[in-house]
Amino acid sequence: MSHTAELIAVGTELLLGNIANTDAQMISQGLSALGITVHNHTVVGDNPERLADALEIARRRADIIITTGGLGPTYDDLTKQTICKTFGRELELHQDILDEISRWFETKMGKKMPANNIQQAMLPVNCTIFDNPVGTAPGCAFEEGGVHVLMLPGPPFECRFMFENRAVPYLEKLTDGVIVSHEIRIFGMGESSVEEKLYETMTKLANPTLAPYAKPNEVMLRATAKADTPEAAEELLQPLVAQVQETLGDVVYGVDVESLEEVVSALLKKDRLTLSAAESCTGGLIAKRITDLPGASEVFRGGIVSYTNGVKAGALGVPEAVLEESGAVSEPVARAMAEGCRRVCGSDLAVSVTGVAGPDSDDRGTEVGTVFIALASDSGTICRRFSCGKGRGRDRVRTSAAQYAFDMIRRFLLGLPQE
Amino acid sequence: MSHTAELIAVGTELLLGNIANTDAQMISQGLSALGITVHNHTVVGDNPERLADALEIARRRADIIITTGGLGPTYDDLTKQTICKTFGRELELHQDILDEISRWFETKMGKKMPANNIQQAMLPVNCTIFDNPVGTAPGCAFEEGGVHVLMLPGPPFECRFMFENRAVPYLEKLTDGVIVSHEIRIFGMGESSVEEKLYETMTKLANPTLAPYAKPNEVMLRATAKADTPEAAEELLQPLVAQVQETLGDVVYGVDVESLEEVVSALLKKDRLTLSAAESCTGGLIAKRITDLPGASEVFRGGIVSYTNGVKAGALGVPEAVLEESGAVSEPVARAMAEGCRRVCGSDLAVSVTGVAGPDSDDRGTEVGTVFIALASDSGTICRRFSCGKGRGRDRVRTSAAQYAFDMIRRFLLGLPQE
Repeated sequence: MSHTAELIAVGTELLLGNIANTDAQMISQGLSALGITVHNHTVVGDNPERLADALEIARRRADIIITTGGLGPTYDDLTKQTICKTFGRELELHQDILDEISRWFETKMGKKMPANNIQQAMLPVNCTIFDNPVGTAPGCAFEEGGVHVLMLPGPPFECRFMFENRAVPYLEKLTDGVIVSHEIRIFGMGESSVEEKLYETMTKLANPTLAPYAKPNEVMLRATAKADTPEAAEELLQPLVAQVQETLGDVVYGVDVESLEEVVSALLKKDRLTLSAAESCTGGLIAKRITDLPGASEVFRGGIVSYTNGVKAGALGVPEAVLEESGAVSEPVARAMAEGCRRVCGSDLAVSVTGVAGPDSDDRGTEVGTVFIALASDSGTICRRFSCGKGRGRDRVRTSAAQYAFDMIRRFLLGLPQE
Repeated sequence: MSHTAELIAVGTELLLGNIANTDAQMISQGLSALGITVHNHTVVGDNPERLADALEIARRRADIIITTGGLGPTYDDLTKQTICKTFGRELELHQDILDEISRWFETKMGKKMPANNIQQAMLPVNCTIFDNPVGTAPGCAFEEGGVHVLMLPGPPFECRFMFENRAVPYLEKLTDGVIVSHEIRIFGMGESSVEEKLYETMTKLANPTLAPYAKPNEVMLRATAKADTPEAAEELLQPLVAQVQETLGDVVYGVDVESLEEVVSALLKKDRLTLSAAESCTGGLIAKRITDLPGASEVFRGGIVSYTNGVKAGALGVPEAVLEESGAVSEPVARAMAEGCRRVCGSDLAVSVTGVAGPDSDDRGTEVGTVFIALASDSGTICRRFSCGKGRGRDRVRTSAAQYAFDMIRRFLLGLPQE
C-alpha cells in the first residue's frame, strides 16, 4: 500500500520568520527514502483553532500526519491537546515518563524539574510513546480512522533524533516497496546547460526519474526509482547514473556525496596527502568547511587567515615588494601565499585565495568578485583567476571562491584539466 | 484594514527535502514588519492540481497570497498557469520582458537565450509586473475578488531581492498601522531560566508582547507592538525592552543585532582595537564568522588555524614541551596559542580555542566538548574552560565554542565579569 504524508509544523516563530522550517526538510528526506510521498508541508502558529483546521485538511488528503513542535513545557505548547481534541482522544499522565524527565533535569541540567514540565508527561491514551533521550519532550503516535498521527518535538536536534530513531521504525512497519535515489553533484556547469544536455532524459523517463535542483554555486541531479526491493531499484538506477556521468563528464564531482570538500578530503586520505589553506577574502571559510568533517585532522594541517597585508607578509612570508607592486589581489600574491602556507604548515598541498569579496572594490579598483586561487605542491604552483558571485553579494563571492578552490584541488588530485 | 497572508511555496525539491523553505522565513520577517499577519505557510510540489487545491484553501483564509517558485523556464514550472486558471485570468506575452531576458542572457551569461525562456515573458493580463534585474524570471501581482496574489521566483537570492524591492512597495500601499518589533539577544542563560524570570510579562501582556525563541547556543526574545505609527509603537516597546535588560542583566548582549560577532566587531571599532584568532577545534569558524561582516578588515587582522601540533608549534610558537606535557587541549596551550597569535598577527587582542570537537575523545581521553579559550591583550592573558555542546554533536561543540569565544571578547571589552 502506498502512503501519502503531510507535515504540519506548529510554531509562531516560523510564521514570524525567526527560524526556517528545517525539520520539514529533514523529515521529507527520510520519508522519501521510505517510499512515502509527501504532498504538503503546512505551518501554523501556536493557535489551537488554526492547528485544528490544518489537521482537518490534512486528514482528508494524507494518511500519515507528522507534526513538529508545540510539545514543550510552556504555555503556548498546545499540539497534543489540539490533536487529541480533533481525533477524539484523551490525554493521560504517564508517571514513568515524568520520572524520566525529572532525571533528565537532574543529571543533564543539574537542577530540579520546573513544575510546568509535568505537561510533557501527559500523552494520548493508547499511543505509541517515542521516548526522548536528547531532550525533555517525548513524542508519540497513534492511528485513528486509517490516519497515523505522529508528534515530534520541534528543536531541530531533537526532531532529527526522534524522527530517525523513533518515527522511522514506526513508519517502516507501514510501508512496502522502496524508493531509492542517488544524488549526482555537479560543479562548473550551470543548471540550464545541464538541463539542455539531459532534457530528453529528464522529461521522458517515468521510473527511474531524473530531476535537477539548483543549489548555491552548484547543480544537483536526483535520480529516483521505485521498486519492490532496493536491489531492483538499483538495477533501474545504475544505467541512468552512468549515462549522466558520461554525458556531463568531469563536472560531475560525486554521487551521493555531501560536498566538494568531502570529495577532496577522501582523495587526500586515499593518496595520504595533507592540505593547508591561506585565506584572504574567504576569511577561514575553506578551513571551516574542511574541518566540519569528522576526522579532518588526518588530511588538514591548518591554515593562515591573512586578512591584512601585515599577516600576509609576517605569517606567510609574502614579500612586501610583491604586495606593493602587484596589490594583495593578484596572481603573484596568491602564488606566494600558497607557497608560504605550504612551508609554514608543512603540508603536501597548500591552497590560497585572495580576492575582493565586497561590498567595495579594493584600493586599486579591482572589481568585486575577482579572485585568484593558487595551489602549491611539490610539482610547482598553479594559479587561476575567477570571477565569483556575479554581483550576488559578499556571501556568494566567498562561497563561490571556496567552491572553486576545492574544485581546483579535486582536479589536481585526479589529474583532470584545470579549465 | 488588517491583512492576513498565506505563503505558498511551489517545488517538489522542498517536498523531497533537497532544500529548506528559507524563502518563507525571509518573507515572513518582512510581512511582520509591515503589520501583515501570516497564519499559514504551505508547500506543494510542481503539480498543478495540488497547487490549485492549495490556492483554493488559501483564498478562503487569507487576503494576500504570496507564491514562491515555479516561475522558471523549465517544463515543471507551472505556477503562473495554475494561478491564472484558478483566478480566471489569461496569460499574455510581454515583448519588452522578453527583450530584457534576452539581454540578461547576453550580458550576464554571455550566451543566447534558450528558447524555453520565452515562457518567462508570459504574464497575467492586467497585472503589476515585478521586473527582475537579478535573474530571468519576472514576478507579478494582481487582485481578484479582494484577494491579492503575488508571484515571486524561488531561488533565495532572487526571491529576497524581488520581495524587498518589488513586493514590499506593492504591499505597503495596502496596509495601515504598523507592527514594530525588537529582538533582544541573550547568551549565557538558558531558555527556561529566561522564561522563569519573565513569565508574568510573557503571558500577561497583549500589546506589546514578549515571546521567546530558542536559537542554537543562545536565546532570543522578540518584543512586538502594534500601533498607528512607528513612534507610537516605539513608545510601547521601550519600557518593555528596558525591563527585560534590567531583569536579565549582562547576558543580554544586544538588541536588534544579528550576532555576537557583530557586537564584538562594533566594540572593537569603537575602541580602535584589532583582533586575531588562533583556532584549533573551531577550525576557522571564528575567522569565518567575523569576516562574514562587511568591513571586517578594519578590526580583524587574521588568524591561524592550528589543526595540528606542528602548526601550533611552527606558526604560533607554542613550545613543544608544553604540548608534550599538557596536551593540545589544555590551559597552557590555549594561553600560548593566544599569545603567539597576537605576536604573529600584530593585533591588540588575540583569542584562541583548543578543544575536542568529537566525535572521538583526544588521545588523552579528554571528554568531547571540553574547550579552553584564552584571550591575550596588553593587560595579560585570561583563560577559561568550557563544556560545549552537551553531547549534541561535533557541529554544536564548534558553534558553541565560537559563541563562548565571542562572548569572552565582549565581556573583556565592556569590562564585565567573565563568569
